[in-house]
Amino acid sequence: MRHLLSVEQLTPDEIEDVLGRVAAFKAKRPSHPQPLRGQTWAMIFAKSSTRTRVSFEVGIHELGGRPLFLNASDIQLGRGEPIKDTARVLGRMVHGAVIRTYAQQDVEDFAAYSGIPTINALTDEEHPCQILTDLFTYREQQGSLAGRVVAFLGDGACNVAASWLFAAAKLDFQLRIAAPAGFQPDPETVRRAGGRVTITADPAAAAAGADLLYTDVWVSMGKEAEQAQRLRALAPYQLNERLVRLAQPGALVMHCLPAYRDKEIEEATFEAHADTIFRQAENRLHTQKAILDWLVERQVEPASRGARGGGAGAEATPA
Amino acid sequence: MRHLLSVEQLTPDEIEDVLGRVAAFKAKRPSHPQPLRGQTWAMIFAKSSTRTRVSFEVGIHELGGRPLFLNASDIQLGRGEPIKDTARVLGRMVHGAVIRTYAQQDVEDFAAYSGIPTINALTDEEHPCQILTDLFTYREQQGSLAGRVVAFLGDGACNVAASWLFAAAKLDFQLRIAAPAGFQPDPETVRRAGGRVTITADPAAAAAGADLLYTDVWVSMGKEAEQAQRLRALAPYQLNERLVRLAQPGALVMHCLPAYRDKEIEEATFEAHADTIFRQAENRLHTQKAILDWLVERQVEPASRGARGGGAGAEATPA
Amino acid sequence: MRHLLSVEQLTPDEIEDVLGRVAAFKAKRPSHPQPLRGQTWAMIFAKSSTRTRVSFEVGIHELGGRPLFLNASDIQLGRGEPIKDTARVLGRMVHGAVIRTYAQQDVEDFAAYSGIPTINALTDEEHPCQILTDLFTYREQQGSLAGRVVAFLGDGACNVAASWLFAAAKLDFQLRIAAPAGFQPDPETVRRAGGRVTITADPAAAAAGADLLYTDVWVSMGKEAEQAQRLRALAPYQLNERLVRLAQPGALVMHCLPAYRDKEIEEATFEAHADTIFRQAENRLHTQKAILDWLVERQVEPASRGARGGGAGAEATPA
Repeated sequence: MRHLLSVEQLTPDEIEDVLGRVAAFKAKRPSHPQPLRGQTWAMIFAKSSTRTRVSFEVGIHELGGRPLFLNASDIQLGRGEPIKDTARVLGRMVHGAVIRTYAQQDVEDFAAYSGIPTINALTDEEHPCQILTDLFTYREQQGSLAGRVVAFLGDGACNVAASWLFAAAKLDFQLRIAAPAGFQPDPETVRRAGGRVTITADPAAAAAGADLLYTDVWVSMGKEAEQAQRLRALAPYQLNERLVRLAQPGALVMHCLPAYRDKEIEEATFEAHADTIFRQAENRLHTQKAILDWLVERQVEPASRGARGGGAGAEATPA
Repeated sequence: MRHLLSVEQLTPDEIEDVLGRVAAFKAKRPSHPQPLRGQTWAMIFAKSSTRTRVSFEVGIHELGGRPLFLNASDIQLGRGEPIKDTARVLGRMVHGAVIRTYAQQDVEDFAAYSGIPTINALTDEEHPCQILTDLFTYREQQGSLAGRVVAFLGDGACNVAASWLFAAAKLDFQLRIAAPAGFQPDPETVRRAGGRVTITADPAAAAAGADLLYTDVWVSMGKEAEQAQRLRALAPYQLNERLVRLAQPGALVMHCLPAYRDKEIEEATFEAHADTIFRQAENRLHTQKAILDWLVERQVEPASRGARGGGAGAEATPA
Repeated sequence: MRHLLSVEQLTPDEIEDVLGRVAAFKAKRPSHPQPLRGQTWAMIFAKSSTRTRVSFEVGIHELGGRPLFLNASDIQLGRGEPIKDTARVLGRMVHGAVIRTYAQQDVEDFAAYSGIPTINALTDEEHPCQILTDLFTYREQQGSLAGRVVAFLGDGACNVAASWLFAAAKLDFQLRIAAPAGFQPDPETVRRAGGRVTITADPAAAAAGADLLYTDVWVSMGKEAEQAQRLRALAPYQLNERLVRLAQPGALVMHCLPAYRDKEIEEATFEAHADTIFRQAENRLHTQKAILDWLVERQVEPASRGARGGGAGAEATPA
C-alpha cells in the first residue's frame, strides 16, 4: 500500500514521476482521465483551510471520485476514539483518505491501520503537497531547479521549511534558510534531510543571488498565543523589495498563502509577484490530481491494470 | 463577466429573461438541460441557512454541477485573508460562486477579483434570489404583476424590502411599504430605486386593496440584541386576518421564511396561505436554476455556444 | 409513504425483506443497481458521528444519489423553526431524509409533514439501522438467529437495547439484558416489545451459553455529566474474557462503536473479536443501502415500476 505522508519518504524518481503527471493534468483539464471513478475519498481536517480543502475537493471530483469532507470535530475522532479504530472503520467504507492534522504520527497510524491510500495534507512536521506544487511551479516557469538556489525566509522551524529541507536532499538544488535564533530548523531534521543546506541568521546573505525567494505565514494556526514574540523576532526576515533586489534578476517570489501584508511579505512585493503566487495556488489542484493518480495506480496489481476504481479495501487488516 | 449581485443592477429585460426560464426548469424537473456539467460552484456562507443552502445545493447538482459548501468560518476568510486573495485563488479552481454574507461590498469584491460568475445569496443590502422567486411565484398563480399592488409589512429597512423597491422600479407594479419610524427604507435607497412606491406608517392603508401581502421575519440573524425593541415597534404590522380582509379578495400572502407564528404573521394566516408560502419556498430551487443557467450562458462567447462546461477561469485577472 | 423510523414499526416480513437485500449489495459492490439515481437525500444530524455519517454518505452516493449533509445547527432548525415547516420545505426540494437527533417525535413529525421517505439514523429511543446491521452480521457469520440467545450487557435503558427488545419480539430468538438497577429497560418498552426477554442484574447469568454477547458505550453523547456515576454502576457489566468463557464456544462479540477500552469492553476481548466488530461497522454501509433500496421501491406505484428516480415530492401535503 503506497501513501504520500512526507517528502522525506519519497525517492527522487517518485518525485519526478509525480511532477511529470502534473503538466498533463493541467493542460487537459477538465478532459483528463478519471482514475477515481466510483471511489469516495474521505477528507479529515482538524484545521480550517481554503486552498487545501478546495483544491482536493475539486481535484477528487474532476478525477471522477467523490470527496467526503469531515471536520475532525464532527466525527468520533473528536470524542477520543483511537485513530486505529477510525482507520479500520473508514478503510472498509472509503477508497482513500486526505488528512490535515497536527501530529505526523496520527497520519502514519491512519495509513497503517486503514488499508487505504492516505495523503498528508499538512501536519506539524511536513506539507508534502505544497512542496511538490512549488517544485512544479518553479519548473513550469523557469525550468529545472537543478543547480539553482532557493532562499527560504522566516520561520525555518515550520513544516513547509522541513519539506523544503527534504526536497533539497532529493533534487539537485541549494537551499538557504534565513531565520533568527529559535526559529531555525531542528538540527536533527537537517541531519536526516542531508541536503545542500545553509542555515543563516542573515536574510541578505540568503537572498543574494537566489533564484527563488520563499516565505510562509509567521503566525500559523495554533500559534496565536506567541504572536507578539513571533512578529518581533521575524520582522527582519520580511520578504520585501530590498531582498528581491539582492536576488537574481527575474528571481521568482512564492508564498503558500494566506499572506499577511507587511508582515512576512511587503504589500508591493506580493502584488508584483501575484501572478506567480496565484499560479502556485492553482497548481495545488493540478499537483494533487497527479498525486491521487499516482497513488491509485500504485493500488493496482500489475496483472489487473485497467481494472481501476473497484471497491474499498474491505476485509483490510492493519499493516 | 456577468454576475447576479442585486436587483438594482438588473434591467427589466434581464428580469424577464430569468423569469422566463423558471417555468421550464420547474416543469421539466429533473429532465432538463445540465449547463453546469463538469463544473464546481463554491457556496460560501457566513450565515446559517436552510432554504438558500438546500435549494442551491440541489439546483447546482440537478444542473450537472457540484456544489462545494464552505462555511465562511471554516475557510481562511475566517482568519482575515483579504477577499481579493480568496477570490483570486477560488477563481482559478472553481467555476462559479454563491455567497451569503453581511457586506454587499464583499460580494462585489469577490466578483471583481475572482473572474468567475458570482451570485448574491443574501447580503445586508439585497436578496435578489428571493425577490426573483417571489415575482415568479406571483406570476405562476395570478399572472402578471403589471398594474397590481404589493404591500410589504414590517421591517421596511431590511434587504428583502430593498430588493422589492428595486423590483418596483423595473416592473410595472405599485409597492407600498408599511413600517414604523426607524424601520422605514433608507431614503437614498428609495431615491435610487425610483419606482412607484408609497411609504406609510399605517398597515391598513398599505393592505387596502392589495394583490399581494408580504412580510419577513422581524428579528433576523445578527439582530437578536434588538429583539425586544423590534417586537414592540413592529407588533402593529403583523400580517393577520384583519389585514387580509382589507386586501383584494383572493390576494396572495407570502413569507420568505422562517416564520415566527404570532409575531410577524398570525398562525391562522400562515396556515391558510401555506400552499403559497411553501410553493414560494420550492420556487427558490427553480428560480436559482434559471439564474445559474442564465449566468452560464452569459459566460459563453457567441462563437462557441454549445461548448459550455469547460474549465474554470484559470489565469483570470482582477476586473 | 413508507419510512424507517423504528424496529417497533417493522413487521417480521419487512425485516426479512431488508436483510435479504443486504447480501446482494455487499457482494456486488460497487456494481449494483443505483435506485437513487437523480435523487438528493438530506442528512440532518444533530449529533456528531463517524460510522453513521460516512456509511450513509457512501451508500447514498454508490446508489447513484447525492447525500446533502446538514448539521442541525447550520440550518434554521437551530433557530427554532418548527420541524413541520422545515419538513414542508425540504420535502419539496429533496427526495428523502436521514435524521440523527434526540427526540423520536421529531423524526416522526418530519416524516409526517415532509412527504418524503425518512430514516431514523439514531434517536434517544431507537437505532433501527444499527440493529438491522447486527442481525445481518450475525446471520452472515453464523446463520439464522432463530432459537439462539443474545446477551446485551450494560446500559439496558439505551436506544440500542430498545431496538434489540423490539427485534426479539419479531424474530425467534431469546434476549437477555444484564443491567444494574437504574439502567434496566423501561417496563413499558418491554411490555410493548413483548418478546422472549429476560432482564437480570447478573451479567454471568446473561452470558451463560449465549450465542452473541453485545455491548454499547456507557457514556454516550449527552450523558457526560453522569459519567462517574455511570462508570461505577456499570463496571460489573464489562464485556470481558471472563464472560466470554461462559458463553457458547465460538460465540460472537459485537460492539456498535466507538469502543472505550477497559470500560464497557476489555481491550483483549475487543481485539480478539475485532474482525467481527469491524465487519459489523462495514455492514452499516451494506445494510443502509438495502434500507434505501427498500424505501425507494416502496415509493413507486405498482403501475410505474421502472420509472424510479423522478423528482421530489413537489406539492406534497402533510400526512
